[in-house]
Amino acid sequence: MIKNKEITSRDENFADWYTNIVQKADIVDYSSIKGFNILAPLGCALWENIQNFLNKRFKETGHQNVMMPVLIPESLLQKEADHIEGFAPETALVCEAGGEKLAEKLCVRPTSETLFCDYYSKIVKSHRDLPKKYNQWCSVVRWEKETRPLLRGREFWWQEGHTVHASKQEAEEETMQMLKIYQELFENVLAIPVIVGKKTKKETFAGAEYTLTVETLMYNGVTLQSATSHYFGENFSKPFNITFANKENKLEYAKQTSWGITTRTLGAIVMVHGDDNGLVLPPRVAPNQVVIIPIKNTENVLKTSKQVEEALKKADISNFTDTTERSAGFKFAEHEMKGVPVRIEIGEKDLEAGVITIVRRDTLQKSTLPLDENLAENIKKLLDDIQTNMFQTAKKRMEEKTFTAYSLEEMEKIISTTPGFIKTMWCGDQACEDKAKKKFAIKSRCMPFKQEKIADKCAICGKEAKYLVIWGIQY
Amino acid sequence: MIKNKEITSRDENFADWYTNIVQKADIVDYSSIKGFNILAPLGCALWENIQNFLNKRFKETGHQNVMMPVLIPESLLQKEADHIEGFAPETALVCEAGGEKLAEKLCVRPTSETLFCDYYSKIVKSHRDLPKKYNQWCSVVRWEKETRPLLRGREFWWQEGHTVHASKQEAEEETMQMLKIYQELFENVLAIPVIVGKKTKKETFAGAEYTLTVETLMYNGVTLQSATSHYFGENFSKPFNITFANKENKLEYAKQTSWGITTRTLGAIVMVHGDDNGLVLPPRVAPNQVVIIPIKNTENVLKTSKQVEEALKKADISNFTDTTERSAGFKFAEHEMKGVPVRIEIGEKDLEAGVITIVRRDTLQKSTLPLDENLAENIKKLLDDIQTNMFQTAKKRMEEKTFTAYSLEEMEKIISTTPGFIKTMWCGDQACEDKAKKKFAIKSRCMPFKQEKIADKCAICGKEAKYLVIWGIQY
Repeated sequence: MIKNKEITSRDENFADWYTNIVQKADIVDYSSIKGFNILAPLGCALWENIQNFLNKRFKETGHQNVMMPVLIPESLLQKEADHIEGFAPETALVCEAGGEKLAEKLCVRPTSETLFCDYYSKIVKSHRDLPKKYNQWCSVVRWEKETRPLLRGREFWWQEGHTVHASKQEAEEETMQMLKIYQELFENVLAIPVIVGKKTKKETFAGAEYTLTVETLMYNGVTLQSATSHYFGENFSKPFNITFANKENKLEYAKQTSWGITTRTLGAIVMVHGDDNGLVLPPRVAPNQVVIIPIKNTENVLKTSKQVEEALKKADISNFTDTTERSAGFKFAEHEMKGVPVRIEIGEKDLEAGVITIVRRDTLQKSTLPLDENLAENIKKLLDDIQTNMFQTAKKRMEEKTFTAYSLEEMEKIISTTPGFIKTMWCGDQACEDKAKKKFAIKSRCMPFKQEKIADKCAICGKEAKYLVIWGIQY
Repeated sequence: MIKNKEITSRDENFADWYTNIVQKADIVDYSSIKGFNILAPLGCALWENIQNFLNKRFKETGHQNVMMPVLIPESLLQKEADHIEGFAPETALVCEAGGEKLAEKLCVRPTSETLFCDYYSKIVKSHRDLPKKYNQWCSVVRWEKETRPLLRGREFWWQEGHTVHASKQEAEEETMQMLKIYQELFENVLAIPVIVGKKTKKETFAGAEYTLTVETLMYNGVTLQSATSHYFGENFSKPFNITFANKENKLEYAKQTSWGITTRTLGAIVMVHGDDNGLVLPPRVAPNQVVIIPIKNTENVLKTSKQVEEALKKADISNFTDTTERSAGFKFAEHEMKGVPVRIEIGEKDLEAGVITIVRRDTLQKSTLPLDENLAENIKKLLDDIQTNMFQTAKKRMEEKTFTAYSLEEMEKIISTTPGFIKTMWCGDQACEDKAKKKFAIKSRCMPFKQEKIADKCAICGKEAKYLVIWGIQY
């Protein structure tokens, strides 16, 4: 336990530290049903900023938002065989409504492929109707046994894009385009480095031809599947009969994709950047980039605070002044816990010297800045510097925690001593994946797009290797 | 049926006209479950614009967004007696999940008072924690018998604000403040005139002390309850035990409010402004204020279209160019159906004369504008003029359809010949409301804030009158 903070130290017990931070920073709270969380004000504001970034990119690339029903008839969910096999064990079923037993049970949506496909089968008739590129923001319900705030919940919030195309090529380009948008979100906005690649057949989404993925690494070396983009081919268009008349007026099955990220992204922000003082937010996603704290609420200090607040707002730097009746020290701790990237302290002594005190959240370094017409510009530079530094720090850590193994023994040693990403060569046989999972409870994360040939033989069976694969313990 | 449009005329069959428009304009579509609709791209974009406006106002007035679970334990829903009595008959219940029967059934949220109260009872302890002003955007499920797209659905989308305050005065001010924000949305953004007032006891929300309401009138004279704001007093804080230590360190029950609007607002936009050519959108809520249609896709026309598009974008006028391979006439009809406020036609002949053709959607008037540096400015003025004209047209209609009655006979005559708002004096006795409802299937809409004394006696029983009341047939 860290003094005066009532939180566990990150290096002492990472799981407890995480649970402390997400609650104390107002990201998430527990409801009275197991596995159902409340997205608290800061969590919701972060999610809205992620929404804003993605909605902009989605619109630029020709997508439209829609909203689908929260319930799915059981018979509709069962139309695609692999899909229902993947989701059936986790469904929550409505059996009564309006005071009566229902003739057919309705499933609270675990994902909406079937709803979108049902809709597309109605509205797609000709090649002129294609492509259709729809997305929705909603929550989904999956009855998980083990739950953990944001990372594995019985309900979580997400965005699910579902598109229909006339050609395989166009659909595959869409699948890759959306993965790149997610990569941009993680690297450029959330300051989280990633490995991008293709899932093995075993880890492919239920019903997809293949799945592309964004994989990230947490502070403790555990990996997190952070965004996925699936190419469906005709796997859904056949059972759902999504056909279109092509230019020669012949009926063809449409090609489809789907792609999504969830509120577990908020968990990644916490687990990549957080420290023993709490959350650390990258400036580009922080709802408030700066908090101004008047050391004492004297007239002169309050007037200057107001001036600084307005100057920053004019320069599009989000900020607010904390004028609540609590000690400055209490406020410092609270806004550190909530991860505000920059703290400005305004006190009488500093004002006499014509300066204000600046504390950056990533390093906790203290400095002063002259109170002049360049202030907003200087804070802007500082915010850019924090964003870059946070990404570089996380990248360095990821590189240090990415290991290479050439045998089962080497894999085992890494997992038991210094968990992280493990690179090995692989023969492509699922039996080897099953073996690794059974022995060390690790899964293949992906076959990265950047393939290297680090050996000739599969690290698990010793047969001829086909792919470079990344492994890891996962949330 | 209107020639070439496959839609019913508004004056011929209003209900059919409405159902045609909402689907053909891509606002809403049917799913495979009765009463569960799909919010299609245009409906979703309109709802997002309403969200943007309200989120801005909510934040300016110190509110924060959160997200609550989609399921509520039955026992939690039953904590406030009036509340459960109001909602129990319409609930949808999850009885099985994760392959097992649940020990306690879970209700798909019909509204979230109980979830917010449960949360507040945990996080509110001292007067320093107050006020708490949270809001959420989500969908809710109520198992209605009769359904109609957007107006009455088994699922609809809404926003629900829930606040907790230390004093009655502050909570009552909040109730009124939020009503005024809704009034601003309807009048200034959606160009829909309103009557604002207080609901009678009979029409008050289940569990509230009183309900304030925004009432609107559709083209056909039917009224629509369009937004409500409730003062709860201690009705929820008592059963949920939401207490705080006041400044004298004594425990007090908190005072609460809640307020919301739903996607039925989109139905109001259709039914107030739409015409026989389709939807008519007020510029301030239209996702695209202008559509540019090249009459032929020649190089010169396309180049000019691009220039106009960019000039308008620079002036913050949302617009797009329709370059799809369909006839100009087809495009005119489609974008009229979708209600785009201004159409710009760009053709070779016009370009030779240095002008472009403009068609405003509200009046369908055609004119030309010079293709010069004032174009964006001129379009801006035109959009303002359309916004004002749409509000004035709707206001004039509402005034013409607001009637005064002094007896039951007069009320009956108005309802059976020219439905609309009916003003009468009322004694304040619920028996009179019951009588009116039983005889003419009308309900009191509200006791308007602007009280007048138009007679001494209650129009229904003839006893001494206490209030001016507005009545109407309702959706």
